[in-house]
Amino acid sequence: MGRCERTRNRVQSPPLFSGSGLPPCPRVSATRSHKSHSEVAAVILAAGKGTRMKSPKPKVLFEICGRSLLGHAIDSVRGVHARSIAIVVGHGREEVRREFEGERDLSFVTQDPPRGTGDAVRVAMPSVPSSAELVLVTYGDMPCLAPTTLNRLIEAKPRGGVALLTVTREKAHGFGRILRDPDGGFAGIREEKDCSSEERAIREVNVGVYAFDREVLVRVLPRITANNAQREYYLTDAVLEIAKHAGLVRLVPLEDENEALGVNSLSELAMARSVWQERILERHLANGVHVVDPETARIDVDVEIGVGTVIQPFTVIRKGCKIGSNCEVGPFAHLRGESVLEDGAKVGNYVEVKKSTLGKGVKAMHLAYLGDTTVGEGSNIGAGTITANYDGKAKWPTLIGARAFIGSGTVLVAPSTVGADAIVGAGAIVTRKKIPAGDVWVGVPARPLQPKGPVARAAASGSASAKPKRKATKTSRVTRGGSRAASRRSR
Amino acid sequence: MGRCERTRNRVQSPPLFSGSGLPPCPRVSATRSHKSHSEVAAVILAAGKGTRMKSPKPKVLFEICGRSLLGHAIDSVRGVHARSIAIVVGHGREEVRREFEGERDLSFVTQDPPRGTGDAVRVAMPSVPSSAELVLVTYGDMPCLAPTTLNRLIEAKPRGGVALLTVTREKAHGFGRILRDPDGGFAGIREEKDCSSEERAIREVNVGVYAFDREVLVRVLPRITANNAQREYYLTDAVLEIAKHAGLVRLVPLEDENEALGVNSLSELAMARSVWQERILERHLANGVHVVDPETARIDVDVEIGVGTVIQPFTVIRKGCKIGSNCEVGPFAHLRGESVLEDGAKVGNYVEVKKSTLGKGVKAMHLAYLGDTTVGEGSNIGAGTITANYDGKAKWPTLIGARAFIGSGTVLVAPSTVGADAIVGAGAIVTRKKIPAGDVWVGVPARPLQPKGPVARAAASGSASAKPKRKATKTSRVTRGGSRAASRRSR
Amino acid sequence: MGRCERTRNRVQSPPLFSGSGLPPCPRVSATRSHKSHSEVAAVILAAGKGTRMKSPKPKVLFEICGRSLLGHAIDSVRGVHARSIAIVVGHGREEVRREFEGERDLSFVTQDPPRGTGDAVRVAMPSVPSSAELVLVTYGDMPCLAPTTLNRLIEAKPRGGVALLTVTREKAHGFGRILRDPDGGFAGIREEKDCSSEERAIREVNVGVYAFDREVLVRVLPRITANNAQREYYLTDAVLEIAKHAGLVRLVPLEDENEALGVNSLSELAMARSVWQERILERHLANGVHVVDPETARIDVDVEIGVGTVIQPFTVIRKGCKIGSNCEVGPFAHLRGESVLEDGAKVGNYVEVKKSTLGKGVKAMHLAYLGDTTVGEGSNIGAGTITANYDGKAKWPTLIGARAFIGSGTVLVAPSTVGADAIVGAGAIVTRKKIPAGDVWVGVPARPLQPKGPVARAAASGSASAKPKRKATKTSRVTRGGSRAASRRSR
Repeated sequence: MGRCERTRNRVQSPPLFSGSGLPPCPRVSATRSHKSHSEVAAVILAAGKGTRMKSPKPKVLFEICGRSLLGHAIDSVRGVHARSIAIVVGHGREEVRREFEGERDLSFVTQDPPRGTGDAVRVAMPSVPSSAELVLVTYGDMPCLAPTTLNRLIEAKPRGGVALLTVTREKAHGFGRILRDPDGGFAGIREEKDCSSEERAIREVNVGVYAFDREVLVRVLPRITANNAQREYYLTDAVLEIAKHAGLVRLVPLEDENEALGVNSLSELAMARSVWQERILERHLANGVHVVDPETARIDVDVEIGVGTVIQPFTVIRKGCKIGSNCEVGPFAHLRGESVLEDGAKVGNYVEVKKSTLGKGVKAMHLAYLGDTTVGEGSNIGAGTITANYDGKAKWPTLIGARAFIGSGTVLVAPSTVGADAIVGAGAIVTRKKIPAGDVWVGVPARPLQPKGPVARAAASGSASAKPKRKATKTSRVTRGGSRAASRRSR
Repeated sequence: MGRCERTRNRVQSPPLFSGSGLPPCPRVSATRSHKSHSEVAAVILAAGKGTRMKSPKPKVLFEICGRSLLGHAIDSVRGVHARSIAIVVGHGREEVRREFEGERDLSFVTQDPPRGTGDAVRVAMPSVPSSAELVLVTYGDMPCLAPTTLNRLIEAKPRGGVALLTVTREKAHGFGRILRDPDGGFAGIREEKDCSSEERAIREVNVGVYAFDREVLVRVLPRITANNAQREYYLTDAVLEIAKHAGLVRLVPLEDENEALGVNSLSELAMARSVWQERILERHLANGVHVVDPETARIDVDVEIGVGTVIQPFTVIRKGCKIGSNCEVGPFAHLRGESVLEDGAKVGNYVEVKKSTLGKGVKAMHLAYLGDTTVGEGSNIGAGTITANYDGKAKWPTLIGARAFIGSGTVLVAPSTVGADAIVGAGAIVTRKKIPAGDVWVGVPARPLQPKGPVARAAASGSASAKPKRKATKTSRVTRGGSRAASRRSR
Repeated sequence: MGRCERTRNRVQSPPLFSGSGLPPCPRVSATRSHKSHSEVAAVILAAGKGTRMKSPKPKVLFEICGRSLLGHAIDSVRGVHARSIAIVVGHGREEVRREFEGERDLSFVTQDPPRGTGDAVRVAMPSVPSSAELVLVTYGDMPCLAPTTLNRLIEAKPRGGVALLTVTREKAHGFGRILRDPDGGFAGIREEKDCSSEERAIREVNVGVYAFDREVLVRVLPRITANNAQREYYLTDAVLEIAKHAGLVRLVPLEDENEALGVNSLSELAMARSVWQERILERHLANGVHVVDPETARIDVDVEIGVGTVIQPFTVIRKGCKIGSNCEVGPFAHLRGESVLEDGAKVGNYVEVKKSTLGKGVKAMHLAYLGDTTVGEGSNIGAGTITANYDGKAKWPTLIGARAFIGSGTVLVAPSTVGADAIVGAGAIVTRKKIPAGDVWVGVPARPLQPKGPVARAAASGSASAKPKRKATKTSRVTRGGSRAASRRSR
């Protein structure tokens, strides 16, 4: 209920530009909507220690839905086509850099010691190209900010001024309150400790995300001082400095307060995860993926799922998996390691698939582990089948041909190959063997069944996992196709 | 949390008949409450294409909790004992008809092309018996409407007029607003596009569900025109026509807005599923079924569960299953195919049961698949047991007698029979055999253990799955009962 | 979403002592905060039948998160260091007593027949030491009351008077309304049936939890009469009696309405469970346990989890389990029977662990059942491994030494021992054997592999379950370490 319910009941969006310091200048408005984002330079503040995470791992490397917090923040600014992205790192900076090695559009700058957000942006300015018209400031621990919101902020940025994101929170405690003048325009930001009791009741607060006019920012940054208890430089002061010198400050209220979610603890990490999970699921539902029970589907980012596929309850699908059309996954299934399910494949109860490819119509319905395995079209993986895919030196593949039948309770020790149309009997232990196409193998360890032939084949069958598409006729039963069909069991 | 929380916090119900065009006539009121429902004819509109579902399947055949949307709608009108049920189909009509073949109380009428709700009802009128006093109009994609609500609507229907359902929505956008006169009576329905800004703020909207006086409906239907942009006939116009000619229009506000949920997308399908899931779970809880964690129990409609049974977290129970008293299911269990669990049976972790019957006190606690299997009273199914139930020509049963013991890691290839009091050793592969009562079989493939006798029996045991009710004494250990008990392992 | 969302959005707490009969006496206030709780006597009312639970089991013995309702109530009063705890039992009193046998701080008194809360407290008074200054009255079916709340109540108790807990409910129906005087002080409690329509609109209600001045309580209890329809003695009358004779009555509003949740049905049991689940999870998250998806983690009370451990979705961890640091549990895992996971151990997909200890770095990643098993440091438990731990006479342990390798699809029939560094081949059935350290055993039933030696070892390997920490070199492959490594498969 939670998830969808919340979407349904979400309060109406506030008007897009509900407050701005001055009546909009028609000409500026006109150009704003055509603003090219190639003029945008992004600065992502990611130097925080994240003490409340209680982990040596840098906070921004914690993942939600298969992507790190910083990865989400980077994706958001990529979403507005920022020409440059400067990431201010501090705590654990080597580990953070390493995580994004080879991503050419990113530059990392170090802030050490941490001396506030104003200082962080100052440190980043040398990485901001002077051709940029606008500097967008976001955070590495604010993973839910949508590109559409950043676009609104960028387009709201007045010439020679700054636009800042605000959010109306039920609990404003601890946040800087937004003061508005009688016309709704910007009148100031008041820190909690300086608030009158009236001001403390204000629930619109500063998110801390800004679109600055670059030239103005360059001018005001040196004027920020650390004359405060923490001896830190606050970026808020840059905004106030702009306002003081008659520069324009525009307020852009968030439509969805979840976007402003900052992650400072594992509890907040879980909240942000939940926000992303809902987004991911809503996208798949809109694409025609039948997620039966979104409350118990856990699907990472970067998962492709084809139209008509059914995702049953209690299913986990990890980042990078690709699932075709008209597949069925779950209940109680786990797909990971960028596995691929081709059209019509089915992975069912208590089945884990890791770094494997299942061809069209393959069925693995019960109690199985498939790792580093390629399964050809139309094969059936019996209940309880396990592939053992590592010998300690290297990972070895398991190859199963098309229309093969793997009996229930079978272990395939890799590297093993099961040829097309081959049958492995129930309970067979296949240890690094190549089973020829069409063969029937049984036993512990598995050996070819003697004598070969249709009768033997029929005897070996009877333990696989899926319902045949058509009923086998008496005639066909003793043929290859028939005996294979004979091996399958119904769903 | 979600589920129960929501129930608990649900807002107070509005008064039953909060608004009606005229002060109630005492005599009519009196008869209303005794109105016989045999006078009710239902018309269910189910011709929509459901484009947003992104599926070739007709929308109304999508299922929630094991029953199709249309099935739910039919059940609702059956719940008010409608004398006739006409279903207006269009898109995918053959597929829809087929789904309900043999259900004698239903008549299907085709609307083609789709020309609006007014046209759909007009098409259905020949199927409405002239003896009906009242025509109830509902929708095939509105699965959450409760019979009690329909009853309220029916009883609110004024003589010579119409009663219509309204709902107060947080987001009324897109719905026809209900206009009320100063006394709270019906004053009109205003389509969004025709609304003044004041009217647009109205949050009470038309659900589109009506109880019409049949004779009045017959009179007004021909007067509806398609003089609108879409060139469609709107049923709303029938209501306005009645109002215009001084007929009575009564408004019946919904108590629970979820009932008005219409399914137009897979996301809305999931929402409706969630509403139904909550209802189903609340019913079982009220009946004395200990659903430990309703948030992670997924139980379909038409499941019987006896008092005292415990449903553990992460459990899926499909339509038609019958579970006795004092059973335990889950965690991580899946029951389907109309399986039966007799009193005291237990199905535990990672166990799937399909189209099987488990006798009294049977235990299948870990990592098992039971399909097309009958298990006699008191038997133990060891961890990792798999039944293979299909040979491609037909499904074959697995029969396990009373008090049998199936060792861990066993595969039973069907058709196989395990006699009463028999023991199958751990890891045995039983391929289409009949194990006599009391026998002990072991190995791959499984064979009778030699020499027979209590000592051998004891040797074979040790791999089953459940804790014996009583501790076996030293003496009893070498007896049949003892060795069987010896095979079981604790929970 | 639900869980964390709710926490986040929870309304601001009301001021601590928002209402009291009189302006606070400064001297009393000063001493109140230093009040010694050794003066507190607790009385827990637990005699109710719980008819709506539909169970022969006494209601207060139903569990949430591994602890009975009464156990939760007892824990709450222990949390305020009550000097004595008297539990008033009635229905099923023998069963209730038995459950808490040996807990020396508890005394049980019988109320039979049930004649109201006032009568219950009267029955309990002989068990209240006369040295107690204060009598705290709570309920056996109110499991969510926090010690901090009871502390607030105790500290609010005025000299010679009573403090009572109130809660503001969206639906006050059925509860006694709190009447306040114009200054916000106590003015009465009005039962629903006696309410004027104005009073019925009051949403602040009496929780029924009191901190009485013992001497005053002793004086007023005899004055309560059963002059009412039910012929019961109501404790509310004691409060009114105190107020009537100019005693002080202070009101202590609850900050979180969930604390007042009383359990009268299985549905309410599930709600209370959900409240507790949220608390437990929030505590672990705050401690640095990375519960990835709190919505699908089910963790009982009294579970220890070390910092840095990751709890994946769809995980059940039962009472008494101890999990070290940097472990990983789930998805789809079930730990129970007070199992222990030492630092760095991993229990993965479809793995159930019961009453077992897994040493440092042990990995059991797929489809396994481990019961009554001790696994030494660094061992790998292959996919599909099952331990059979009971022979019917006694439970037998399975012992697996350090750095052992258990192949996929293996069954270990207890009592069995696998020596350190030993290898059990894929699919082996080990029936009550002692495998010497360093040995390699394979087959059904399992026997030592001949000839012994590195080559044979390599042949047997290839079916375990976890990724080696380092890649084995070609040289090491034929050594013991190498062949063991060779047996592992990647994650």
